[in-house]
Amino acid sequence: MNAGAHVSERRSSGRRAAGRRPGDSGTRAAIGEAARAQFADFGYHGATIRGIAAAADVDPALIHHYYGTKEALFADAMRLPVVPSEMLTAALANRPDDSGLGSHLVRTALTLWESAGVKDTFLGLLRSAVTSEQASVMLREFIADTILATVAKATGLDKQWSPAESEFRATLVATQMLGLALTRLVLGLPGVAEVSVDELATAVGPSVDRYLTGDIGLPARASRRKRPARTSR
Amino acid sequence: MNAGAHVSERRSSGRRAAGRRPGDSGTRAAIGEAARAQFADFGYHGATIRGIAAAADVDPALIHHYYGTKEALFADAMRLPVVPSEMLTAALANRPDDSGLGSHLVRTALTLWESAGVKDTFLGLLRSAVTSEQASVMLREFIADTILATVAKATGLDKQWSPAESEFRATLVATQMLGLALTRLVLGLPGVAEVSVDELATAVGPSVDRYLTGDIGLPARASRRKRPARTSR
Repeated sequence: MNAGAHVSERRSSGRRAAGRRPGDSGTRAAIGEAARAQFADFGYHGATIRGIAAAADVDPALIHHYYGTKEALFADAMRLPVVPSEMLTAALANRPDDSGLGSHLVRTALTLWESAGVKDTFLGLLRSAVTSEQASVMLREFIADTILATVAKATGLDKQWSPAESEFRATLVATQMLGLALTRLVLGLPGVAEVSVDELATAVGPSVDRYLTGDIGLPARASRRKRPARTSR
Repeated sequence: MNAGAHVSERRSSGRRAAGRRPGDSGTRAAIGEAARAQFADFGYHGATIRGIAAAADVDPALIHHYYGTKEALFADAMRLPVVPSEMLTAALANRPDDSGLGSHLVRTALTLWESAGVKDTFLGLLRSAVTSEQASVMLREFIADTILATVAKATGLDKQWSPAESEFRATLVATQMLGLALTRLVLGLPGVAEVSVDELATAVGPSVDRYLTGDIGLPARASRRKRPARTSR
Protein backbone atom coordinates (compact mmCIF):
# COMPACT_ATOMS: atom_id res chain seq x y z
CA MET A 1 0.00 0.00 0.00
CA ASN A 2 3.07 2.19 -0.02
CA ALA A 3 2.54 4.79 -2.73
CA GLY A 4 6.06 5.29 -4.09
CA ALA A 5 7.15 8.09 -6.41
CA HIS A 6 6.27 6.20 -9.61
CA VAL A 7 2.83 5.25 -8.37
CA SER A 8 2.15 8.77 -7.10
CA GLU A 9 2.93 10.17 -10.49
CA ARG A 10 0.59 7.71 -12.10
CA ARG A 11 -2.23 8.65 -9.70
CA SER A 12 -1.45 12.25 -10.35
CA SER A 13 -1.57 11.86 -14.15
CA GLY A 14 -4.80 9.96 -13.60
CA ARG A 15 -6.42 12.86 -11.84
CA ARG A 16 -5.44 15.24 -14.61
CA ALA A 17 -6.30 12.83 -17.37
CA ALA A 18 -9.72 14.25 -18.19
CA GLY A 19 -7.89 17.42 -19.27
CA ARG A 20 -4.43 17.10 -20.77
CA ARG A 21 -3.88 13.43 -20.05
CA PRO A 22 -0.19 13.52 -19.29
CA GLY A 23 1.27 10.05 -19.09
CA ASP A 24 -1.76 8.78 -20.93
CA SER A 25 -0.25 5.68 -22.51
CA GLY A 26 1.54 4.71 -19.28
CA THR A 27 -1.64 5.06 -17.27
CA ARG A 28 -3.62 3.08 -19.81
CA ALA A 29 -0.96 0.38 -19.84
CA ALA A 30 -1.12 0.13 -16.04
CA ILE A 31 -4.91 -0.10 -16.13
CA GLY A 32 -4.75 -2.74 -18.87
CA GLU A 33 -2.28 -4.82 -16.91
CA ALA A 34 -4.33 -4.57 -13.71
CA ALA A 35 -7.51 -5.40 -15.64
CA ARG A 36 -6.03 -8.54 -17.23
CA ALA A 37 -4.84 -9.75 -13.83
CA GLN A 38 -8.14 -9.01 -12.05
CA PHE A 39 -10.31 -10.53 -14.81
CA ALA A 40 -8.13 -13.65 -14.70
CA ASP A 41 -8.16 -13.84 -10.89
CA PHE A 42 -11.79 -13.00 -10.18
CA GLY A 43 -13.55 -13.82 -13.49
CA TYR A 44 -15.58 -11.40 -15.57
CA HIS A 45 -18.37 -11.25 -12.95
CA GLY A 46 -16.08 -10.89 -9.96
CA ALA A 47 -13.68 -8.25 -11.28
CA THR A 48 -14.78 -4.70 -10.52
CA ILE A 49 -13.72 -1.34 -11.87
CA ARG A 50 -13.07 -0.29 -8.27
CA GLY A 51 -10.76 -3.28 -7.72
CA ILE A 52 -8.95 -2.75 -11.01
CA ALA A 53 -8.49 0.95 -10.19
CA ALA A 54 -7.02 0.05 -6.80
CA ALA A 55 -4.63 -2.47 -8.39
CA ALA A 56 -3.53 0.09 -10.99
CA ASP A 57 -3.45 2.78 -8.29
CA VAL A 58 -5.68 5.18 -10.22
CA ASP A 59 -9.02 6.80 -9.44
CA PRO A 60 -12.03 4.63 -10.47
CA ALA A 61 -13.53 7.73 -12.08
CA LEU A 62 -10.60 7.78 -14.49
CA ILE A 63 -11.42 4.24 -15.68
CA HIS A 64 -15.07 5.21 -16.15
CA HIS A 65 -13.88 8.27 -18.06
CA TYR A 66 -11.55 6.28 -20.33
CA TYR A 67 -13.71 3.22 -20.95
CA GLY A 68 -17.30 3.89 -19.91
CA THR A 69 -18.18 0.24 -19.20
CA LYS A 70 -16.62 -2.88 -17.78
CA GLU A 71 -17.08 -4.55 -21.16
CA ALA A 72 -15.15 -1.81 -22.97
CA LEU A 73 -12.37 -2.11 -20.38
CA PHE A 74 -12.32 -5.89 -20.87
CA ALA A 75 -12.24 -5.53 -24.66
CA ASP A 76 -9.35 -3.09 -24.43
CA ALA A 77 -7.45 -5.20 -21.90
CA MET A 78 -7.86 -8.27 -24.15
CA ARG A 79 -6.79 -6.14 -27.13
CA LEU A 80 -10.07 -6.59 -28.96
CA PRO A 81 -10.29 -3.89 -31.64
CA VAL A 82 -14.05 -3.52 -31.02
CA VAL A 83 -16.47 -3.68 -28.12
CA PRO A 84 -18.39 -6.84 -29.05
CA SER A 85 -21.86 -5.80 -27.85
CA GLU A 86 -21.64 -2.41 -29.60
CA MET A 87 -20.44 -3.98 -32.83
CA LEU A 88 -23.08 -6.73 -32.71
CA THR A 89 -25.90 -4.31 -31.91
CA ALA A 90 -24.89 -1.99 -34.75
CA ALA A 91 -24.44 -4.82 -37.26
CA LEU A 92 -27.74 -6.47 -36.36
CA ALA A 93 -29.59 -3.16 -36.66
CA ASN A 94 -28.35 -2.88 -40.25
CA ARG A 95 -29.84 -6.05 -41.63
CA PRO A 96 -30.52 -5.96 -45.38
CA ASP A 97 -34.17 -6.53 -46.31
CA ASP A 98 -33.35 -9.67 -48.26
CA SER A 99 -31.46 -11.41 -45.47
CA GLY A 100 -32.91 -13.64 -42.76
CA LEU A 101 -31.86 -12.86 -39.21
CA GLY A 102 -29.95 -16.11 -38.81
CA SER A 103 -27.88 -15.73 -41.97
CA HIS A 104 -27.24 -12.07 -41.14
CA LEU A 105 -25.96 -13.16 -37.73
CA VAL A 106 -23.65 -15.75 -39.32
CA ARG A 107 -22.37 -13.22 -41.87
CA THR A 108 -21.80 -10.57 -39.17
CA ALA A 109 -19.96 -12.89 -36.79
CA LEU A 110 -17.73 -14.46 -39.45
CA THR A 111 -16.86 -11.07 -40.96
CA LEU A 112 -15.98 -9.75 -37.51
CA TRP A 113 -13.90 -12.79 -36.61
CA GLU A 114 -11.94 -12.55 -39.81
CA SER A 115 -11.27 -8.83 -39.48
CA ALA A 116 -7.81 -7.67 -38.48
CA GLY A 117 -6.94 -8.31 -34.88
CA VAL A 118 -10.08 -10.15 -33.87
CA LYS A 119 -9.01 -13.57 -35.09
CA ASP A 120 -5.79 -13.49 -33.08
CA THR A 121 -7.56 -12.27 -29.96
CA PHE A 122 -10.21 -14.93 -30.38
CA LEU A 123 -7.56 -17.62 -30.75
CA GLY A 124 -5.73 -16.23 -27.71
CA LEU A 125 -8.87 -16.31 -25.56
CA LEU A 126 -9.73 -19.81 -26.76
CA ARG A 127 -6.17 -20.99 -26.12
CA SER A 128 -6.35 -19.66 -22.56
CA ALA A 129 -9.77 -21.22 -22.03
CA VAL A 130 -8.70 -24.72 -23.05
CA THR A 131 -5.49 -24.44 -21.04
CA SER A 132 -6.69 -22.87 -17.81
CA GLU A 133 -9.89 -23.36 -15.81
CA GLN A 134 -9.53 -19.77 -14.57
CA ALA A 135 -9.45 -18.36 -18.10
CA SER A 136 -12.35 -20.61 -19.08
CA VAL A 137 -14.48 -19.15 -16.26
CA MET A 138 -13.56 -15.63 -17.36
CA LEU A 139 -14.50 -16.29 -20.99
CA ARG A 140 -17.71 -18.12 -20.03
CA GLU A 141 -18.85 -15.19 -17.86
CA PHE A 142 -17.92 -12.67 -20.52
CA ILE A 143 -19.85 -14.55 -23.22
CA ALA A 144 -22.88 -15.07 -20.94
CA ASP A 145 -22.98 -11.47 -19.67
CA THR A 146 -22.28 -9.59 -22.85
CA ILE A 147 -22.49 -11.66 -26.05
CA LEU A 148 -25.52 -13.78 -25.19
CA ALA A 149 -27.36 -10.85 -23.59
CA THR A 150 -26.63 -8.71 -26.65
CA VAL A 151 -27.78 -11.41 -29.07
CA ALA A 152 -30.96 -11.88 -27.03
CA LYS A 153 -31.68 -8.16 -27.08
CA ALA A 154 -30.66 -7.39 -30.68
CA THR A 155 -32.65 -10.31 -32.09
CA GLY A 156 -35.70 -9.64 -29.93
CA LEU A 157 -35.39 -12.98 -28.10
CA ASP A 158 -35.81 -11.19 -24.80
CA LYS A 159 -39.20 -9.80 -25.84
CA GLN A 160 -40.50 -13.03 -27.33
CA TRP A 161 -39.50 -15.56 -24.67
CA SER A 162 -39.08 -15.90 -20.93
CA PRO A 163 -35.61 -14.92 -19.62
CA ALA A 164 -34.66 -18.59 -19.18
CA GLU A 165 -35.83 -19.60 -22.65
CA SER A 166 -34.21 -16.52 -24.17
CA GLU A 167 -30.90 -17.52 -22.52
CA PHE A 168 -31.23 -21.12 -23.73
CA ARG A 169 -31.94 -20.01 -27.30
CA ALA A 170 -29.06 -17.52 -27.32
CA THR A 171 -26.76 -20.26 -26.02
CA LEU A 172 -27.86 -22.62 -28.81
CA VAL A 173 -26.98 -19.87 -31.29
CA ALA A 174 -23.57 -19.64 -29.58
CA THR A 175 -22.97 -23.39 -29.94
CA GLN A 176 -23.39 -23.05 -33.70
CA MET A 177 -21.41 -19.81 -34.07
CA LEU A 178 -18.48 -20.96 -31.91
CA GLY A 179 -18.47 -24.29 -33.73
CA LEU A 180 -18.13 -22.40 -37.01
CA ALA A 181 -15.27 -20.34 -35.58
CA LEU A 182 -13.52 -23.44 -34.24
CA THR A 183 -13.80 -25.46 -37.45
CA ARG A 184 -13.07 -22.55 -39.82
CA LEU A 185 -10.45 -20.52 -37.95
CA VAL A 186 -8.73 -23.03 -35.68
CA LEU A 187 -9.02 -26.41 -37.39
CA GLY A 188 -9.42 -25.15 -40.95
CA LEU A 189 -11.68 -28.01 -42.01
CA PRO A 190 -11.83 -27.60 -45.82
CA GLY A 191 -15.65 -27.89 -45.96
CA VAL A 192 -16.02 -24.64 -44.02
CA ALA A 193 -12.62 -22.98 -44.44
CA GLU A 194 -12.67 -22.98 -48.23
CA VAL A 195 -16.15 -21.57 -48.80
CA SER A 196 -17.26 -17.94 -48.68
CA VAL A 197 -18.91 -16.20 -45.75
CA ASP A 198 -22.09 -15.79 -47.84
CA GLU A 199 -22.21 -19.48 -48.65
CA LEU A 200 -21.90 -20.35 -44.97
CA ALA A 201 -24.59 -17.79 -44.11
CA THR A 202 -26.93 -19.54 -46.58
CA ALA A 203 -26.10 -23.00 -45.27
CA VAL A 204 -26.14 -22.25 -41.54
CA GLY A 205 -28.49 -19.24 -41.23
CA PRO A 206 -31.77 -21.20 -41.15
CA SER A 207 -30.41 -23.40 -38.33
CA VAL A 208 -29.70 -20.23 -36.36
CA ASP A 209 -33.24 -18.99 -37.15
CA ARG A 210 -34.56 -22.24 -35.75
CA TYR A 211 -32.74 -21.58 -32.46
CA LEU A 212 -34.11 -18.04 -32.36
CA THR A 213 -37.76 -18.77 -33.08
CA GLY A 214 -38.38 -22.46 -33.88
CA ASP A 215 -39.61 -25.38 -31.82
CA ILE A 216 -36.65 -26.47 -29.73
CA GLY A 217 -38.27 -28.09 -26.67
CA LEU A 218 -37.63 -26.16 -23.49
CA PRO A 219 -35.32 -27.98 -21.05
CA ALA A 220 -36.71 -28.70 -17.57
CA ARG A 221 -34.06 -26.45 -16.05
CA ALA A 222 -35.17 -23.49 -18.12
CA SER A 223 -38.85 -24.19 -17.34
CA ARG A 224 -38.07 -24.36 -13.64
CA ARG A 225 -36.20 -21.11 -13.86
CA LYS A 226 -39.27 -19.25 -15.11
CA ARG A 227 -40.90 -19.42 -11.70
CA PRO A 228 -38.25 -20.19 -9.11
CA ALA A 229 -39.80 -22.58 -6.60
CA ARG A 230 -39.79 -21.26 -3.06
CA THR A 231 -39.15 -23.85 -0.42
CA SER A 232 -39.29 -23.48 3.33
CA ARG A 233 -35.67 -24.57 3.70
CA MET B 1 20.50 -46.85 -37.75
CA ASN B 2 22.71 -48.64 -35.21
CA ALA B 3 20.59 -51.32 -33.62
CA GLY B 4 21.90 -51.40 -30.06
CA ALA B 5 21.13 -54.06 -27.48
CA HIS B 6 17.97 -52.37 -26.25
CA VAL B 7 16.63 -51.77 -29.72
CA SER B 8 17.52 -55.26 -30.88
CA GLU B 9 15.63 -56.68 -27.98
CA ARG B 10 12.65 -54.54 -28.87
CA ARG B 11 12.74 -55.71 -32.48
CA SER B 12 13.13 -59.23 -31.29
CA SER B 13 10.16 -58.98 -28.89
CA GLY B 14 8.27 -57.42 -31.78
CA ARG B 15 8.89 -60.37 -34.04
CA ARG B 16 7.74 -62.82 -31.39
CA ALA B 17 4.79 -60.70 -30.37
CA ALA B 18 2.19 -62.54 -32.41
CA GLY B 19 2.94 -65.54 -30.25
CA ARG B 20 3.97 -64.99 -26.64
CA ARG B 21 4.37 -61.21 -26.83
CA PRO B 22 7.32 -60.86 -24.48
CA GLY B 23 8.10 -57.23 -23.77
CA ASP B 24 4.63 -56.39 -25.04
CA SER B 25 4.05 -53.20 -23.03
CA GLY B 26 7.54 -51.87 -23.80
CA THR B 27 7.07 -52.47 -27.52
CA ARG B 28 3.65 -50.87 -27.49
CA ALA B 29 5.03 -47.89 -25.58
CA ALA B 30 7.78 -47.46 -28.18
CA ILE B 31 5.25 -47.69 -31.01
CA GLY B 32 2.97 -45.19 -29.24
CA GLU B 33 5.82 -42.75 -28.76
CA ALA B 34 6.95 -43.05 -32.39
CA ALA B 35 3.35 -42.70 -33.58
CA ARG B 36 2.74 -39.50 -31.59
CA ALA B 37 5.94 -37.99 -32.98
CA GLN B 38 5.24 -39.01 -36.58
CA PHE B 39 1.60 -37.89 -36.52
CA ALA B 40 2.73 -34.53 -35.12
CA ASP B 41 5.57 -34.16 -37.63
CA PHE B 42 3.84 -35.39 -40.79
CA GLY B 43 0.13 -34.94 -40.01
CA TYR B 44 -2.48 -37.68 -40.05
CA HIS B 45 -2.28 -38.04 -43.84
CA GLY B 46 1.50 -37.97 -44.04
CA ALA B 47 2.36 -40.37 -41.23
CA THR B 48 2.64 -43.97 -42.38
CA ILE B 49 2.65 -47.26 -40.52
CA ARG B 50 5.93 -48.04 -42.30
CA GLY B 51 7.50 -44.78 -41.07
CA ILE B 52 6.24 -45.28 -37.53
CA ALA B 53 7.57 -48.84 -37.53
CA ALA B 54 10.97 -47.59 -38.67
CA ALA B 55 11.03 -44.91 -35.94
CA ALA B 56 10.06 -47.46 -33.28
CA ASP B 57 12.46 -49.98 -34.82
CA VAL B 58 9.84 -52.71 -35.14
CA ASP B 59 8.46 -54.66 -38.08
CA PRO B 60 5.50 -52.91 -39.81
CA ALA B 61 3.68 -56.25 -39.73
CA LEU B 62 3.74 -56.07 -35.95
CA ILE B 63 1.91 -52.73 -35.99
CA HIS B 64 -0.67 -54.15 -38.38
CA HIS B 65 -1.03 -57.12 -36.08
CA TYR B 66 -1.46 -55.01 -32.95
CA TYR B 67 -3.67 -52.26 -34.35
CA GLY B 68 -5.12 -53.27 -37.72
CA THR B 69 -5.57 -49.73 -39.04
CA LYS B 70 -3.84 -46.36 -38.95
CA GLU B 71 -6.88 -44.93 -37.17
CA ALA B 72 -6.69 -47.54 -34.41
CA LEU B 73 -2.99 -46.78 -33.98
CA PHE B 74 -3.74 -43.05 -33.83
CA ALA B 75 -6.53 -43.60 -31.29
CA ASP B 76 -4.22 -45.68 -29.13
CA ALA B 77 -1.31 -43.23 -29.44
CA MET B 78 -3.64 -40.34 -28.44
CA ARG B 79 -4.96 -42.51 -25.59
CA LEU B 80 -8.52 -42.53 -26.89
CA PRO B 81 -10.36 -45.38 -25.16
CA VAL B 82 -12.26 -46.15 -28.39
CA VAL B 83 -11.66 -46.12 -32.14
CA PRO B 84 -13.97 -43.23 -33.14
CA SER B 85 -15.19 -44.59 -36.48
CA GLU B 86 -15.96 -48.03 -35.01
CA MET B 87 -17.81 -46.50 -32.08
CA LEU B 88 -19.74 -44.07 -34.29
CA THR B 89 -20.69 -46.76 -36.81
CA ALA B 90 -21.90 -49.09 -34.07
CA ALA B 91 -23.84 -46.36 -32.25
CA LEU B 92 -25.48 -45.04 -35.42
CA ALA B 93 -26.50 -48.56 -36.44
CA ASN B 94 -28.40 -48.88 -33.14
CA ARG B 95 -30.77 -45.97 -33.53
CA PRO B 96 -34.04 -46.35 -31.60
CA ASP B 97 -37.16 -46.26 -33.79
CA ASP B 98 -38.47 -43.14 -32.07
CA SER B 99 -35.33 -41.05 -32.55
CA GLY B 100 -34.49 -38.86 -35.54
CA LEU B 101 -31.03 -39.34 -37.02
CA GLY B 102 -29.86 -35.84 -35.99
CA SER B 103 -30.88 -36.16 -32.36
CA HIS B 104 -29.43 -39.68 -32.23
CA LEU B 105 -26.15 -38.28 -33.53
CA VAL B 106 -26.16 -35.53 -30.88
CA ARG B 107 -26.98 -38.04 -28.12
CA THR B 108 -24.28 -40.44 -29.31
CA ALA B 109 -21.54 -37.81 -29.59
CA LEU B 110 -22.29 -36.14 -26.25
CA THR B 111 -22.51 -39.49 -24.45
CA LEU B 112 -19.18 -40.52 -25.96
CA TRP B 113 -17.49 -37.21 -25.12
CA GLU B 114 -18.63 -37.39 -21.54
CA SER B 115 -17.55 -40.98 -21.06
CA ALA B 116 -14.42 -41.73 -19.05
CA GLY B 117 -11.22 -40.78 -20.77
CA VAL B 118 -12.67 -39.24 -23.91
CA LYS B 119 -13.29 -35.78 -22.48
CA ASP B 120 -9.68 -35.42 -21.33
CA THR B 121 -8.34 -36.65 -24.65
CA PHE B 122 -10.65 -34.33 -26.53
CA LEU B 123 -9.53 -31.38 -24.42
CA GLY B 124 -5.90 -32.38 -24.93
CA LEU B 125 -6.30 -32.55 -28.72
CA LEU B 126 -8.15 -29.24 -28.76
CA ARG B 127 -5.52 -27.63 -26.54
CA SER B 128 -2.79 -28.79 -28.94
CA ALA B 129 -4.77 -27.59 -31.95
CA VAL B 130 -5.23 -24.04 -30.67
CA THR B 131 -1.61 -23.88 -29.53
CA SER B 132 0.22 -25.42 -32.46
CA GLU B 133 -0.37 -25.19 -36.20
CA GLN B 134 1.20 -28.62 -36.56
CA ALA B 135 -1.25 -30.20 -34.11
CA SER B 136 -4.10 -28.36 -35.80
CA VAL B 137 -3.18 -29.90 -39.17
CA MET B 138 -3.02 -33.35 -37.57
CA LEU B 139 -6.44 -32.99 -35.94
CA ARG B 140 -7.98 -31.51 -39.10
CA GLU B 141 -6.75 -34.41 -41.23
CA PHE B 142 -7.86 -36.95 -38.64
CA ILE B 143 -11.36 -35.45 -38.44
CA ALA B 144 -11.65 -35.16 -42.23
CA ASP B 145 -10.36 -38.67 -42.96
CA THR B 146 -12.11 -40.63 -40.25
CA ILE B 147 -14.88 -38.77 -38.44
CA LEU B 148 -16.43 -36.96 -41.41
CA ALA B 149 -16.07 -39.98 -43.67
CA THR B 150 -17.67 -42.19 -41.02
CA VAL B 151 -20.54 -39.77 -40.45
CA ALA B 152 -21.11 -39.56 -44.22
CA LYS B 153 -21.19 -43.34 -44.52
CA ALA B 154 -23.15 -44.16 -41.37
CA THR B 155 -25.84 -41.57 -42.10
CA GLY B 156 -26.10 -42.48 -45.79
CA LEU B 157 -24.90 -39.03 -46.93
CA ASP B 158 -22.46 -40.68 -49.30
CA LYS B 159 -25.28 -42.51 -51.10
CA GLN B 160 -27.62 -39.53 -51.29
CA TRP B 161 -25.25 -36.77 -52.41
CA SER B 162 -22.18 -36.19 -54.55
CA PRO B 163 -18.86 -36.67 -52.71
CA ALA B 164 -18.33 -32.90 -52.48
CA GLU B 165 -21.82 -32.22 -51.16
CA SER B 166 -21.57 -35.16 -48.80
CA GLU B 167 -18.32 -33.71 -47.42
CA PHE B 168 -19.85 -30.25 -47.05
CA ARG B 169 -22.89 -31.61 -45.21
CA ALA B 170 -20.77 -33.77 -42.88
CA THR B 171 -18.60 -30.71 -42.14
CA LEU B 172 -21.69 -28.64 -41.28
CA VAL B 173 -22.69 -31.39 -38.85
CA ALA B 174 -19.18 -31.16 -37.38
CA THR B 175 -19.49 -27.38 -36.88
CA GLN B 176 -22.57 -27.95 -34.73
CA MET B 177 -21.22 -30.95 -32.83
CA LEU B 178 -17.83 -29.39 -32.08
CA GLY B 179 -19.57 -26.17 -31.05
CA LEU B 180 -21.63 -28.18 -28.56
CA ALA B 181 -18.48 -29.82 -27.22
CA LEU B 182 -16.68 -26.48 -26.93
CA THR B 183 -19.53 -24.67 -25.15
CA ARG B 184 -20.53 -27.60 -22.92
CA LEU B 185 -17.19 -29.22 -22.05
CA VAL B 186 -14.65 -26.41 -22.36
CA LEU B 187 -16.51 -23.18 -21.63
CA GLY B 188 -19.31 -24.68 -19.55
CA LEU B 189 -21.90 -22.14 -20.72
CA PRO B 190 -24.83 -22.77 -18.33
CA GLY B 191 -27.43 -22.91 -21.13
CA VAL B 192 -25.83 -26.09 -22.53
CA ALA B 193 -23.76 -27.36 -19.59
CA GLU B 194 -26.66 -27.58 -17.15
CA VAL B 195 -29.19 -29.40 -19.34
CA SER B 196 -29.39 -33.12 -20.06
CA VAL B 197 -28.04 -34.88 -23.13
CA ASP B 198 -31.63 -35.77 -24.14
CA GLU B 199 -32.72 -32.16 -23.90
CA LEU B 200 -29.84 -31.07 -26.12
CA ALA B 201 -30.63 -33.87 -28.57
CA THR B 202 -34.20 -32.54 -28.82
CA ALA B 203 -33.07 -28.92 -29.25
CA VAL B 204 -30.18 -29.48 -31.66
CA GLY B 205 -31.12 -32.72 -33.47
CA PRO B 206 -33.40 -31.15 -36.12
CA SER B 207 -30.64 -28.66 -37.04
CA VAL B 208 -28.33 -31.61 -37.64
CA ASP B 209 -31.06 -33.31 -39.72
CA ARG B 210 -31.20 -30.15 -41.81
CA TYR B 211 -27.47 -30.43 -42.52
CA LEU B 212 -27.87 -34.10 -43.44
CA THR B 213 -30.87 -33.82 -45.77
CA GLY B 214 -32.26 -30.26 -45.91
CA ASP B 215 -31.84 -27.42 -48.36
CA ILE B 216 -28.48 -25.87 -47.54
CA GLY B 217 -27.42 -24.30 -50.84
CA LEU B 218 -24.37 -25.97 -52.34
CA PRO B 219 -21.23 -23.78 -52.26
CA ALA B 220 -19.60 -23.04 -55.59
CA ARG B 221 -16.49 -24.86 -54.47
CA ALA B 222 -18.42 -28.05 -53.82
CA SER B 223 -20.24 -27.72 -57.17
CA ARG B 224 -16.97 -27.22 -58.99
CA ARG B 225 -15.53 -30.22 -57.28
CA LYS B 226 -18.17 -32.52 -58.73
CA ARG B 227 -16.63 -32.17 -62.18
CA PRO B 228 -13.10 -30.86 -61.78
CA ALA B 229 -12.41 -28.42 -64.61
CA ARG B 230 -9.52 -29.43 -66.83
CA THR B 231 -7.42 -26.59 -68.08
CA SER B 232 -4.62 -26.67 -70.60
CA ARG B 233 -2.11 -25.30 -68.10
